[in-house]
Amino acid sequence: MADGEQAAREQAAREQELTDRVAASFDGADDERLRTVLQALTRHLHAFLREVRLTEDEWHKGIEFLTAAGHLTDDKRQEFILLSDVLGASMQTIAINNEAHANATEATVFGPFFVDDAPRVENGGDIAGGATGQPCWVEGTVTDTAGNPVEGARIEVWEADEDGFYDVQYGDDRTAGRAHLFSDADGGYRFWGITPTPYPIPHDGPVGALLAASGRSPLRAAHLHFMVTAPGLRALVTHIFVRGDELLGSDSVFGVKESLVMDFEELPAGAPTPDGRAVEGTWSRTRFDIVLAPAG
Amino acid sequence: MADGEQAAREQAAREQELTDRVAASFDGADDERLRTVLQALTRHLHAFLREVRLTEDEWHKGIEFLTAAGHLTDDKRQEFILLSDVLGASMQTIAINNEAHANATEATVFGPFFVDDAPRVENGGDIAGGATGQPCWVEGTVTDTAGNPVEGARIEVWEADEDGFYDVQYGDDRTAGRAHLFSDADGGYRFWGITPTPYPIPHDGPVGALLAASGRSPLRAAHLHFMVTAPGLRALVTHIFVRGDELLGSDSVFGVKESLVMDFEELPAGAPTPDGRAVEGTWSRTRFDIVLAPAG
Ligand SMILES: [Fe+2]
Ligand SMILES: [Fe+2]
Repeated sequence: MADGEQAAREQAAREQELTDRVAASFDGADDERLRTVLQALTRHLHAFLREVRLTEDEWHKGIEFLTAAGHLTDDKRQEFILLSDVLGASMQTIAINNEAHANATEATVFGPFFVDDAPRVENGGDIAGGATGQPCWVEGTVTDTAGNPVEGARIEVWEADEDGFYDVQYGDDRTAGRAHLFSDADGGYRFWGITPTPYPIPHDGPVGALLAASGRSPLRAAHLHFMVTAPGLRALVTHIFVRGDELLGSDSVFGVKESLVMDFEELPAGAPTPDGRAVEGTWSRTRFDIVLAPAG
Repeated sequence: MADGEQAAREQAAREQELTDRVAASFDGADDERLRTVLQALTRHLHAFLREVRLTEDEWHKGIEFLTAAGHLTDDKRQEFILLSDVLGASMQTIAINNEAHANATEATVFGPFFVDDAPRVENGGDIAGGATGQPCWVEGTVTDTAGNPVEGARIEVWEADEDGFYDVQYGDDRTAGRAHLFSDADGGYRFWGITPTPYPIPHDGPVGALLAASGRSPLRAAHLHFMVTAPGLRALVTHIFVRGDELLGSDSVFGVKESLVMDFEELPAGAPTPDGRAVEGTWSRTRFDIVLAPAG
């Protein structure tokens, strides 16, 4: 027994000595930040290996997993971002870089479906652009944390259609379900979109297999993406979610925050619309007031 | 100040809550070991992100690094193994799975250059097979930890040529610098190989860039690979290194262990060889006595 304890102490010392040696190998990095990041990565990676006593077979499976993820990744599919998402690393990075600031609106994951050059619509315009789904009126204001309206804030919005697909997944070059608009002199904004619906993250690759083996669903809670920027204010990347969505508690990428869950009111066919537009069938409406933190 | 402390506490609580939520998402994994590994991975990954306060830009660089590594990896090049190697993760996994056992020979990294069907040579034969370099006589015994000779142990050996290349890097189908042989009734083994020389790990990819940015050399200390197997005994994957090699302290994959550093005696041209073979020019010799731990 004493022999066993002695052996365990010596084993632990050997393992720690190796970790220290690897960390020290980065001492010569010119960039201090790179050194800090690589030394911390080394220590946490080794702590993981040592805690679980990773077997050589498991190490091989890890190498195979990363290899398969790399081979699946191309311009349209990013399996490493999906991996980061389902491990909550994306959301943790968001949390670290968007600390709560007074009453500022909370951030959430960016996701892989943003496109840089989405068309501009006027305030009150329609962003659907042919994406199918129940019409949804979205309105709100953009203010700073003191409540002052922010005029001219650039508001990028994007969302999946009722079948759960973004335009970039259609396989043609259509632009649909995305646009940008600007807040007016009172900080107000409004547009027609479509009522958000749940969709699965791509799950036919190694990340999907990991979710399946873990008994986890690839589904994301229904949401509508926002990116809001204005001079002198912190850029905000976020979504709004739909109150009552049964997926709020099991979002596959951990993007849900209670403050981002909005009431979507369901209106019957024929109910008068805010802007007098004639809508066939039912429609919905929601309000999302956006508060931007100071920059920096 | 009190406000700042309060805010910091709330931020830390939010980050911890996210980590806990991600870890709990793996509670439903059928395989208990998978659950353990993924939950530990989650906790250590998040601890890393939180400790260094990873920026969103750095997160993107990480995704790009993994993507580039994935695209470079194919049947002949394994950038993820190289990454594991230079972070010491491969060597730590070896350490964890090959705990010291009495006087048993220590293990080290397997490396990417082993080939399954290397030719057999008789005891005393030559493994060079055309690989160029100074001839080197290697001999020793295989015993168990009680000192009993192990007859019929299968000894796989492989090494780079004097230019630092393994046969699989030649670009043709030659087999050179590798073979297997079996220990004799006294546990003895002996063969002609070539004196080990240093070589760089492949460093024209993202892992090489990481080493360069860290001021680290891609060179491996000179070594000769062994894999030794015998019924009822723990398989041993190891190298021997060359005493006096100036790279012993900076091996790029952290494979060096003091117990694996051997004396290589340098012999002048014309010195009589152990088996009477005529050698042109200088040659070297070393002794490596192998002690195998019990299996399991
Ligand atoms: Fe989305
Ligand atoms: Fe090697």
